[in-house]
Amino acid sequence: MKNILGREIPEYIEGYGEVRTFEGAFKNGGIKIKKEVKVNSVTPNDKKVLSSIEEVLDRVAIKDGMTISFHHHLRNGDYVLNLVVQAIASRGIKNLTVAVSSIFPNHSPLIEHIKNGVVTKIVTNYMSGPVAQEISRGILKTPVIMHTHGGRSRAIESGDLHIDVAFIAAPTADTYGNVNGLYGKSACGALGYAISDAQCADRVVAITDNLVPYPTCPIEISQIYVDYVLKVDSIGDSAGIVSGTTQITNDPVGLKIAKMASDVMVATGLVKDEMSFQTGAGGISLAVAAELRKYMKQHSIVGSFASGGITGYIVDMFKEGLFRSLFDVQCFDLQAVQSYVSSHKHQRMSASMYGNPDNKGAVVNNLDIVILGATEIDTNFNVNVTTGSDGAIMGGSGGHSDTAAGAKLTIIVTQLMKARLPIIKDKVTTITTPGECIDVIVTERGIAVNPKRLDIIEKLKKTNLPIMTIEQLKIIAEKMTGKPKEIKLTDQIVAVIEYRDGSVIDVVRKPL
Amino acid sequence: MKNILGREIPEYIEGYGEVRTFEGAFKNGGIKIKKEVKVNSVTPNDKKVLSSIEEVLDRVAIKDGMTISFHHHLRNGDYVLNLVVQAIASRGIKNLTVAVSSIFPNHSPLIEHIKNGVVTKIVTNYMSGPVAQEISRGILKTPVIMHTHGGRSRAIESGDLHIDVAFIAAPTADTYGNVNGLYGKSACGALGYAISDAQCADRVVAITDNLVPYPTCPIEISQIYVDYVLKVDSIGDSAGIVSGTTQITNDPVGLKIAKMASDVMVATGLVKDEMSFQTGAGGISLAVAAELRKYMKQHSIVGSFASGGITGYIVDMFKEGLFRSLFDVQCFDLQAVQSYVSSHKHQRMSASMYGNPDNKGAVVNNLDIVILGATEIDTNFNVNVTTGSDGAIMGGSGGHSDTAAGAKLTIIVTQLMKARLPIIKDKVTTITTPGECIDVIVTERGIAVNPKRLDIIEKLKKTNLPIMTIEQLKIIAEKMTGKPKEIKLTDQIVAVIEYRDGSVIDVVRKPL
Repeated sequence: MKNILGREIPEYIEGYGEVRTFEGAFKNGGIKIKKEVKVNSVTPNDKKVLSSIEEVLDRVAIKDGMTISFHHHLRNGDYVLNLVVQAIASRGIKNLTVAVSSIFPNHSPLIEHIKNGVVTKIVTNYMSGPVAQEISRGILKTPVIMHTHGGRSRAIESGDLHIDVAFIAAPTADTYGNVNGLYGKSACGALGYAISDAQCADRVVAITDNLVPYPTCPIEISQIYVDYVLKVDSIGDSAGIVSGTTQITNDPVGLKIAKMASDVMVATGLVKDEMSFQTGAGGISLAVAAELRKYMKQHSIVGSFASGGITGYIVDMFKEGLFRSLFDVQCFDLQAVQSYVSSHKHQRMSASMYGNPDNKGAVVNNLDIVILGATEIDTNFNVNVTTGSDGAIMGGSGGHSDTAAGAKLTIIVTQLMKARLPIIKDKVTTITTPGECIDVIVTERGIAVNPKRLDIIEKLKKTNLPIMTIEQLKIIAEKMTGKPKEIKLTDQIVAVIEYRDGSVIDVVRKPL
Repeated sequence: MKNILGREIPEYIEGYGEVRTFEGAFKNGGIKIKKEVKVNSVTPNDKKVLSSIEEVLDRVAIKDGMTISFHHHLRNGDYVLNLVVQAIASRGIKNLTVAVSSIFPNHSPLIEHIKNGVVTKIVTNYMSGPVAQEISRGILKTPVIMHTHGGRSRAIESGDLHIDVAFIAAPTADTYGNVNGLYGKSACGALGYAISDAQCADRVVAITDNLVPYPTCPIEISQIYVDYVLKVDSIGDSAGIVSGTTQITNDPVGLKIAKMASDVMVATGLVKDEMSFQTGAGGISLAVAAELRKYMKQHSIVGSFASGGITGYIVDMFKEGLFRSLFDVQCFDLQAVQSYVSSHKHQRMSASMYGNPDNKGAVVNNLDIVILGATEIDTNFNVNVTTGSDGAIMGGSGGHSDTAAGAKLTIIVTQLMKARLPIIKDKVTTITTPGECIDVIVTERGIAVNPKRLDIIEKLKKTNLPIMTIEQLKIIAEKMTGKPKEIKLTDQIVAVIEYRDGSVIDVVRKPL
C-alpha cells in the first residue's frame, strides 16, 4: 500500500497493528475525545514520600507488559530512566513498553534491557546515539513508534498511548508531589514534555534529588497528579542537562544561509510588529535569529512571542524587548532557566499546548515563522530529520512537524551538501514532515519555494535572492556530489513514523 | 430514610434522582475516574474571537435543556451570568440548568427566568440574596443542588455534573482564549473556581472586557481549553468585585473569641514552624489571624502556607515572612490581587486542587488549622452554614466542609447567640458540615471540644481556658435566649445538600 506521499506502508505491521495511513497534514480535525483518567484518590492521612525505588515499584504494582514513561528534560544527563528500568529488570520483569519523549546517548543501558526482553516496545519522539543505532539494526522485538512532540501528547491524552506508570524526573519536588524544574542541582527549567504523562498516567511518581518542604513554588506539575515521591542522590549529570551557552555558527557558509533566510523572512512581509518566531538551537538557526535581531532593532519591531525550546540567545532578544513574551516547553541552557525563574512573561507551555493538533489550538498555530533543519529533502519538499545517510535512525521529528504545520512560513535552512552527500534528492530515506508544510528551502547556492506558495514566489521575485526550483537546486547539488547511491534496505520495519495526528506517514526499514 | 446523622432523606427525590446517602466524611476513597472530555479541535486557520453574544450562542448551538456554567470570582459585581441567561432567554429557550459556583444578590434577574421556565435547575455552592430567598419559597421546579467548592470540581471532573457550555468571566483574555484575572478594569485575581469548568465542559467561552493581543501573561486558563472569545463593554461592576479592605472586628466580644481561639491553637501545639493556616474574611476570623500574627512574630514562627480566598490581611502576614507561601483560589480584595501579580510564592490553585476529595490530594489535606464560622451547631458538632433562623437558604458550604475535612484542627468561632437566638441546638435546620470534622467550638462564654478529640481535651485541660461540654454551652445559651421555637417546614424539598464526595448529607425543606 502506498500513502499519498508515495511511501510503501503495509496495512498491518506486526507489533504495531493496523495502520491508519497519512492523508494530509490537516485531514483529521473535528471533535476529539480526551480519554478518561484513573485516579487513586488520596486522603488527609496518606503520605506520598516513599523510601526506596523498591517501595515505589511495590506501590505501583509494577508488572510484566506495563507501559512506563519518562520525559527528556535532563537530556544527555538523565539518570532516571536507567535507574528505574534497571530496578524493574532486577525483578525479572519483561515486556515493558518504554515511552520516553526522547532518547539520548546516555540511555545506552537500554540496549541490554532490549536484548534481554525486559523492554520490547519503545515509543519516542527523537533518538540519537547507541540506542538509535542498535534499534536500526533490528534488536527490538517490535518497531519503535516515533511521534512528534505534539503528537505524543495527543496520543497520551486520547488514550492511543496508555501509560501505566509515569516517572517524572523532578529537579525539585515537595513532600506532597508538587514539582518544578527551576531549582536544585539538576535544574533544567520548564517541564513541558512531562505534563500529559502526569495528567493521564494511571500512576505518577516524582523522582527528585531536591526534596523540599511543602509547598514548592512555583508549581509546574501539581500534587493532584502525583501519587508518590522518591528522593535519590542524583537524578542527573548537570554537565549533560544544560549546555553552557548555545553558539551561533561562525562558518561563512552558514552565515550566508542565515542572511538569505532573514532576507526571505523580511520579503514575505511577516517581519513586523506582533510577529512570532521560533528557531532551533543549532548554529545556523541561531545565526538566523541574529540576523532577525539586527533587523528588528533597526526597524524598532516588537514581536508577540518566541517559542520552542528556549535558548539564551532568544532570552537576550526577549530581554531587549524584541519579543513581549516567550513560550517555553524546554530550556536549552542556564540563561533560559534563569529567565524563566525571573519573569512571568517567560512562560511555560506543555507539549500539548505547544503542538497537540487535537486540542483547542496549540501555540504552533499562532507561529508566523519557524526556522527548521533537514537531513534530506525531496523534490516534493518532504523532509527527513529521522534517519541519516546510512539509513539508521539519528533523530526524529520532535517539534519539526508540529511547528511546520502551524507556522505561516516554514523555512528550512541547510547546506546543500553534508558529508559530501546532496541534501536534495528524488526520494528521502524517511519522511518526517510532509512537503505541504514546508514553504521555503534556503541553501548557500539557492532558494527553492514550494510551488503552492505562489504568494511567496511573487514576493521573492521582487528581490535579488537566488530563487530557483527545487529540481534546479537538486541538479546543482548532484553536480557537486554526484548522484548518491541508494541505501539498500531489508524488509524489516524498525520504526513506524506517526504524523502528529497519529496516522502513519512513513516507516523505517532496517538497512542491509 | 435516615442517614447516619439522623436526617430524614427520601431514597429518591423528584428532580434530583436516586439519593446516595452520606455515610461519613471519608467513606468514599479509592480509585476514581475522571470522565472523558469532548474537544472541538482547532486548526491554524480558525479564529476564536466572535462578534456578539448571538454569534456565540449560534456557534455553541445552545438549546433547550442544556447545562451552562459560570464562576463567581466577580461576586456581587458579576454581569456575565445575567447577560448570558438573558440572551438565551430571548431565544425562547427553556429548561436550562445553571451551574454557578455561587449566587449573589446581583443575580436577582434569575428569579424571572426561573418563573418563566427558562431556568429549571440550579447547581451552586453558595447562595445569598433574593434568588436564595425565592428558591427557599419553592419557585424552582427542581431542588437546587448545593455542593462544596471541592465537591463541585469533583462533580464536574467525574461527569456527575456535565456542562454543555461554560462561560468564563475573564478580566483579561487574549485573542486565542488565554485568560487571566489579574489585569483589566474588572481584575479579580485568581480564577480557581473556573478551572474544572474550562477543562471539562463541552464548549468554553471566555467573555472579557479586556481583550488583549496574543499572548497574555500569565495564563491562568489556557487557550487549549477555550473555544471562543467574546469582547463586551463590561463584565462587572468593580465596586462589587473586590471589597476595599477587609476589616478586623472591633467588637469586644468578637475580639475575646479570637483571643480564646488563638489560645486553643497554641495549646494544641500546632502553632510552630511549617504550620499551615486558613481563615475566612469575616471580622472574627480576621481577628484570629491578628492574634496568630502577634504570636508568630513573638515566637519567630514561619509557617509553610496560608490558603483559601486570600485577603489583604493574610497578604500582610505573608509579606512579613510569617508564611513562606500562599495558595489562592480567589482574591478577596485588591491587596490580594496585587500580591498575586507580584510574587510567584503567592500562587493560584484550582478549586479541585483546593478541595476535591477525589484527586491525588487536595491542599486542604495539608492544612493544620482552619478557622470557620457557623449559623447553627448541634450537640453532635454538626454545623449549619446553609440556612438561616427562618429556614431559608442564606449561604452554603463553599470551602467549609472541604477545609473541615482536611485540617488537623478545625475551630468554629462564633458568638453564642445571634439575633437573640442560640447558636447551639439539639438539631440544626440543615447540616452543611458533619460533626466528625469539627474539633473545637469557641464562643465568648466557653469552649467545647469534640469528645472524640481526646488529645485536644487533654492539652486544653492544662490551660485556664473555659472548657465545657457542648451540652453545657447549649444550656448557657438557652438560659440567655430561651429555647428557640422550632421552624415549621413543609414536605417540599427546595435544596439537596451534597457532601464533598457527592453523597447527600441533608435536604432543605421549604419553610411553612
